[in-house]
Amino acid sequence: MKYKIAVIPGDGIGPEITTQAELVLARLGELFGHEFATTHVLAGGAAIDVFGEPLPDQTIEIAKESDAVLLGAVGGPKWDGMPGHLRPEAGLLKLRKSLNLYANLRPAILYDALKEACPLRADLVEGGLDILVMRELTGGIYFGEKGRREGPNGPEAYDVECYSEMEVERIARAAFEAARNRGRDKKVTSVDKNNVLESSRLWREVVIRVAAEYPDITLEHMFVDNAAMQLVRAPKQFDVILTSNIFGDILSDEASMVTGSIGMLPSASLSSAGMPGVYEPIHGSAPDIAGKDVANPIATILSLSMMMRHAFGLESEAATIDQAVKEVLEAGWRTGDIAKPGERTIGTKEMGRRIIDAL
Amino acid sequence: MKYKIAVIPGDGIGPEITTQAELVLARLGELFGHEFATTHVLAGGAAIDVFGEPLPDQTIEIAKESDAVLLGAVGGPKWDGMPGHLRPEAGLLKLRKSLNLYANLRPAILYDALKEACPLRADLVEGGLDILVMRELTGGIYFGEKGRREGPNGPEAYDVECYSEMEVERIARAAFEAARNRGRDKKVTSVDKNNVLESSRLWREVVIRVAAEYPDITLEHMFVDNAAMQLVRAPKQFDVILTSNIFGDILSDEASMVTGSIGMLPSASLSSAGMPGVYEPIHGSAPDIAGKDVANPIATILSLSMMMRHAFGLESEAATIDQAVKEVLEAGWRTGDIAKPGERTIGTKEMGRRIIDAL
Ligand SMILES: CC(C)[C@H](C(=O)O)[C@@H](O)C(=O)O
Ligand SMILES: CC(C)[C@H](C(=O)O)[C@@H](O)C(=O)O
Repeated sequence: MKYKIAVIPGDGIGPEITTQAELVLARLGELFGHEFATTHVLAGGAAIDVFGEPLPDQTIEIAKESDAVLLGAVGGPKWDGMPGHLRPEAGLLKLRKSLNLYANLRPAILYDALKEACPLRADLVEGGLDILVMRELTGGIYFGEKGRREGPNGPEAYDVECYSEMEVERIARAAFEAARNRGRDKKVTSVDKNNVLESSRLWREVVIRVAAEYPDITLEHMFVDNAAMQLVRAPKQFDVILTSNIFGDILSDEASMVTGSIGMLPSASLSSAGMPGVYEPIHGSAPDIAGKDVANPIATILSLSMMMRHAFGLESEAATIDQAVKEVLEAGWRTGDIAKPGERTIGTKEMGRRIIDAL
Repeated sequence: MKYKIAVIPGDGIGPEITTQAELVLARLGELFGHEFATTHVLAGGAAIDVFGEPLPDQTIEIAKESDAVLLGAVGGPKWDGMPGHLRPEAGLLKLRKSLNLYANLRPAILYDALKEACPLRADLVEGGLDILVMRELTGGIYFGEKGRREGPNGPEAYDVECYSEMEVERIARAAFEAARNRGRDKKVTSVDKNNVLESSRLWREVVIRVAAEYPDITLEHMFVDNAAMQLVRAPKQFDVILTSNIFGDILSDEASMVTGSIGMLPSASLSSAGMPGVYEPIHGSAPDIAGKDVANPIATILSLSMMMRHAFGLESEAATIDQAVKEVLEAGWRTGDIAKPGERTIGTKEMGRRIIDAL
């Protein structure tokens, strides 16, 4: 089979880590007899430098014609002074909106070989962690009306958090489906602030309605402040966390840090009808270590595994990637971010090569 | 001296824990020759049951005539079915607004005697933790316009996050003053989401402007998603965290859980001109253990210590309370929530009595 993949290397460590992922992709194609045809396109700071905008139309077009998009990371201090709509982040938000990527899947997994990197007490994570944060990605306060105005107390600025029933319904369905397919605790924890926000009240009503279609899944509601506590106190209680764009931004980062291996965690942003998904590491562009061959390429390589599964339905290809990463970690190979003090580390390229050898 | 204190026992464990705090107060008055005159008033579910509303005018009036307010906790499943504006939480929000309590001080402290309750790896909290979350409490999405409407995709609900320069200015000033008075790292970490929100952009501009008046304090900016991670990864980097109402709700709960002793943590909600502050534990009303004499009264008793300091300027009285709590903990006395498995525990009343004896 032939699969078309748009690659957005992006900024900072983005190019280095996507390069390793592309090498993995090429080898995987050989092994399984697929053609993974990649096209490089620009977004983020790299696009600002060339086109003066963070997401040129050309990038959107090529992405739309592809079967999936692989993204490195965007952003860096170089573009921090730009006005809001011309910053690399604006390109990312526009990409999400243009491809209608409303479902952001962020697994937070504690790798057995990396147990010691976990900041929590060992007894709290015994037996590992495997949480999926299902974050709504094209609505809420990220995309509501915003601006400045004169208020009763002088100048003010505002942002509107807004959710339609339709938006909540489809992300809720994605969460229940995921809970079913994961086959773990079959539990969805819907996180809101329904004691204060009207949008959370609508959120909860719709989630309860959708839950009726999934009698095999347990639904639980939790306030966002409590969820932020519970992720630290007893993270094993979670299976799928379903939440809004802004709460998901906060809680998915907290959840990934709770595993201690943020350099390891991939993500998928999915649409429903016909649009390609975007697969990317959850970590940022880390400009401070860019170009030094020290970045950890594993999160990007595992993003390929999510792509195989979600975009192409290639389960054995995905499992092959997961297994190769596991073997390399178990053999003791570490990039700097996941090494213990004093442990010998390897660079971006060597990590990529070892994973390819293990495929 | 005579001090007038309005006491709102509230719901759930509220009455039990405020009772112990009042006993502490009485003994403290004897020891130092003050008269602490308390008046009980209703708010939350207890007020709904009697007056049909969560914050009767009478409560507001008596609070306004007092020098300080001591609050237990409000809320419980009994009132969960009520419409939004008639829930116990609405009473709490109205109290904050009526008294103009814009500055919410939430210290997250790791008590040496309770080190083992901390969910983080010991090496991450070595030497203790002492973070102050300065949360804006009368603005933002809690108090912006909210409602339901017909949108392009059908029914939707919205909440407006809004900050005026004036609101940011005064809470920023409170944070810088606190950082100066604490005399620790003299650092303020302002948390926002300025890469996405217009209100965060205004927030950051104003904070930078106010910072110019405090050249002795270091100002740092952090995105809220990163702050949620850093609190788990390296909590010792924080001194004062300055943030908005909703981000402060989430991060202060996370910070307090990071200390592992949520039953221990007090808070103060302060106004500037002439209004009394509200002093309360940060934990909730815990309806499941109400009336069983097992609740931990320490957070409420330590709220008195904050009251002595912030409302009355009674530094030695505050220190006497702090010291008594410390001694009782060091002597090994524990309520159930802070006990290690197998450890002998004491009840609410006995904990109160032991602290009074230690005064
Ligand atoms: C860069 C930023 C706009 C983005 C977000 O907030 O969504 C990032 O934090 C993420 O989570 O992907
Ligand atoms: C009960 C609720 C409205 C309240 C809040 O969100 O402010 C609580 O969580 C708190 O932090 O005091």
